[in-house]
Amino acid sequence: MNHDSSSNIAKRLQEWIAGATPGSRLPSTRSLVAEHRASPVTVQKALQALTAQGLIESRPGVGTFVRAVRTARLSDYGWQTAALRSPQTPPRSASAAMRSTTNDVIAFHSGYPDWELLPERLVRAALARAARSGAALSRPPAPGLPELQSWFAHELGASTPAGITPPAPGDVVVLPGSQSGLSSIFRALVGPGQPLLMESPTYWGAILAAAQAGVRVIPVPSGPDGPDPEELARAFEESGARMFYAQPNYANPTGAQWTARRGEQVQDIVRTNGAFLVEDDWAHDFGINTTPVPIAARDDSGHVVYLRSLTKSVSPAIRVAAVIARGPALERILADRAAESMYVSGLLQAAALDVVTQPAWQTHLRSLRHQLQSRRDLLAASLREYAPQAHIGHIPKGGLNLWARLPDGTDLELLGRDCESAGVIVAAGTEWFPAEPTGPFLRLNFAGPNPGAFREGARILGQALERNSR
Amino acid sequence: MNHDSSSNIAKRLQEWIAGATPGSRLPSTRSLVAEHRASPVTVQKALQALTAQGLIESRPGVGTFVRAVRTARLSDYGWQTAALRSPQTPPRSASAAMRSTTNDVIAFHSGYPDWELLPERLVRAALARAARSGAALSRPPAPGLPELQSWFAHELGASTPAGITPPAPGDVVVLPGSQSGLSSIFRALVGPGQPLLMESPTYWGAILAAAQAGVRVIPVPSGPDGPDPEELARAFEESGARMFYAQPNYANPTGAQWTARRGEQVQDIVRTNGAFLVEDDWAHDFGINTTPVPIAARDDSGHVVYLRSLTKSVSPAIRVAAVIARGPALERILADRAAESMYVSGLLQAAALDVVTQPAWQTHLRSLRHQLQSRRDLLAASLREYAPQAHIGHIPKGGLNLWARLPDGTDLELLGRDCESAGVIVAAGTEWFPAEPTGPFLRLNFAGPNPGAFREGARILGQALERNSR
Repeated sequence: MNHDSSSNIAKRLQEWIAGATPGSRLPSTRSLVAEHRASPVTVQKALQALTAQGLIESRPGVGTFVRAVRTARLSDYGWQTAALRSPQTPPRSASAAMRSTTNDVIAFHSGYPDWELLPERLVRAALARAARSGAALSRPPAPGLPELQSWFAHELGASTPAGITPPAPGDVVVLPGSQSGLSSIFRALVGPGQPLLMESPTYWGAILAAAQAGVRVIPVPSGPDGPDPEELARAFEESGARMFYAQPNYANPTGAQWTARRGEQVQDIVRTNGAFLVEDDWAHDFGINTTPVPIAARDDSGHVVYLRSLTKSVSPAIRVAAVIARGPALERILADRAAESMYVSGLLQAAALDVVTQPAWQTHLRSLRHQLQSRRDLLAASLREYAPQAHIGHIPKGGLNLWARLPDGTDLELLGRDCESAGVIVAAGTEWFPAEPTGPFLRLNFAGPNPGAFREGARILGQALERNSR
Repeated sequence: MNHDSSSNIAKRLQEWIAGATPGSRLPSTRSLVAEHRASPVTVQKALQALTAQGLIESRPGVGTFVRAVRTARLSDYGWQTAALRSPQTPPRSASAAMRSTTNDVIAFHSGYPDWELLPERLVRAALARAARSGAALSRPPAPGLPELQSWFAHELGASTPAGITPPAPGDVVVLPGSQSGLSSIFRALVGPGQPLLMESPTYWGAILAAAQAGVRVIPVPSGPDGPDPEELARAFEESGARMFYAQPNYANPTGAQWTARRGEQVQDIVRTNGAFLVEDDWAHDFGINTTPVPIAARDDSGHVVYLRSLTKSVSPAIRVAAVIARGPALERILADRAAESMYVSGLLQAAALDVVTQPAWQTHLRSLRHQLQSRRDLLAASLREYAPQAHIGHIPKGGLNLWARLPDGTDLELLGRDCESAGVIVAAGTEWFPAEPTGPFLRLNFAGPNPGAFREGARILGQALERNSR
């Protein structure tokens, strides 16, 4: 007769545990006694050893179980260092504009409009209808729901002057947000190592997408009326670039809007250089004193690649945008999107189309215009009164942001921490520069929560600037 | 007094039209007469000339308008050829598996389960609830809704044996579909020009994502039990690859399931080579005779990067998947996702979580298993009876497809057209090979619409094969 020792039993049980699911019940003491021909005391000793190792736990009156919560171990992923090689693009920390904050702070940093500026009733009704429709269980064609493609084409076509062929629905590719469009455009139309001109300052998401695509970014300075045509022409000539990325209406962060004349000049330069203008019309629904007319509306030669998003104006949950392009460029974008994500949820597309085709959408946009105006004016006035050191060179005619120039030598990191400790979150302008910042700036969002606190926020910012300049 | 000629008036009006929106009303004849100090006849002549040019149209009794529908012009986008340079990856036509077809055909080609295999009631209820919740109007954190991250981590952790640390919620990145995960993994963890081992045959979407990322694909032959360990070891050694992409459970297209022993061998080889195994668990919810246990459950050293999708089993409209990774690899994937799409719609995430945490989800999965079994067996029997030339070497224990070897010399293109003219759509196996196909194959989906027509479909296929071999 073979009497197993407790350590032998523990060893066998360890093997059994290694193959078992956490929470599995161990054989009863009685059956272990029988199996190992050992005394109950020996079996208990083995179980105690395993309990001490954290492998099992006994629940009195129920049984003994493989432990679900295991003892924490320190992992070593050092081997990955060689396998991954050095990164193709230097790591960047997450943007301040994407930071989620609690309700008790004054948030000037966000890139998104507050909940109360969204068409909540329309969004909920559209999603509920979509949930009952065929869109809830089917797959749309890769380029997008045909009706939504038509809507995007028609939106741009409505500003197209006579003599110019408006875009066709087939020129539209629906995207899961315009960030995906930027990535596809830079990847599929420019490519690694190739030059790309960008306004400076410009949208940090575009800078990020360009870095991910491995393109070589060449900044072109841009003021309240748009980029200097001579600088732009020179940049094309020097770099051999075939693309210029810009936001002609209410640029993020500056709020700049190109004059019609400047738009035509840029179009001419782009055409002369056999190049593309990527027009990121991110704030199409956020006009305040003017109504934006896309430059793309005046192009039917395939020189303008147009991006329009509904995420910010409809709902961050309805992640739907579109790119409008023509010719081989359209084919390249389509191929890239197919490889990247195949298609965009038809439910989100149906809901987006539902929202923007309701008569109440137009009413919402009119009310939004008034709300943005009073918010913008309130923040600008509050800054003038309480934080005059934050110089607003230009009151934007649309968009969501003020762009403030701070006194030379301001330490933005220190200022940010100082403001935050007093309950105000600001975004340093640094992220909006493709190269070195040209000075200390802040981007201040006037579409965030609780405009009633703008004055207080400006006061705190002013005090922090005061302390910072001492 | 200056009397404008009709051609002068026409020229001025042309300039006006160029800046006008289609549908704009032209000034009345009376005011044009006054403005140009011309006779009504002269003004009419100018308007007739513009009408003939297709620039305006008159609606009797209403007025004259800038034409909304313009004369079609042939566009020349030839200039883009130089701007775009040659493509970084050769263009591929859209996959047969993504083709949308009408209801009157017998569809064996699709990669998706039919509507009747989806949890329709659960999906609609979950979407309706999400539409009423905060998720309809807010933005989730970039890596995903924390509760959904936890669910994905727990699903994998449930198969984790004792002694192995299960994944934490923070190891999970939620994706807008697993295709996006493949793109990010190949782009961020391998990179252009670097080698990547892949099973052959394997999922066409992975081959596509690899091509888009510009990686160098090295095929490793894989049979019903998985890849030959010696071939795999040799491929690692010869290529210096640091990643192997595979589908260990119910591989698409073959339906192969690796044995437990083979899984361990592959894990050993991967570990020895300081490499990653990308485990694409696409058919986790489609087990028929077995229940899949992911290899990732047995890894806590960061060697397995695990992909799990809900799109196919929950709904094609709920485009939600997840990647589970650890260490620096996780960081690289997170950074790539942030640059590519920032975040996944919180509404879709909330709805997905709602569906898979309902008790009825488990009931649905059990019923699905039975339905897939009877569909698989029906199609296999129909093929044996009516199309014996289509040899099914291996009845898969899960998944959605049969993989049929056709007689040598079968012209797949001819066969496809022949079947299609008789109302049966098939997918040629060619797309599932990273390199040259090793013979003529068909992938036949048994999860498509109308299983009642499987016999008829097999009969038509058999006849087409008969004609084809003559």
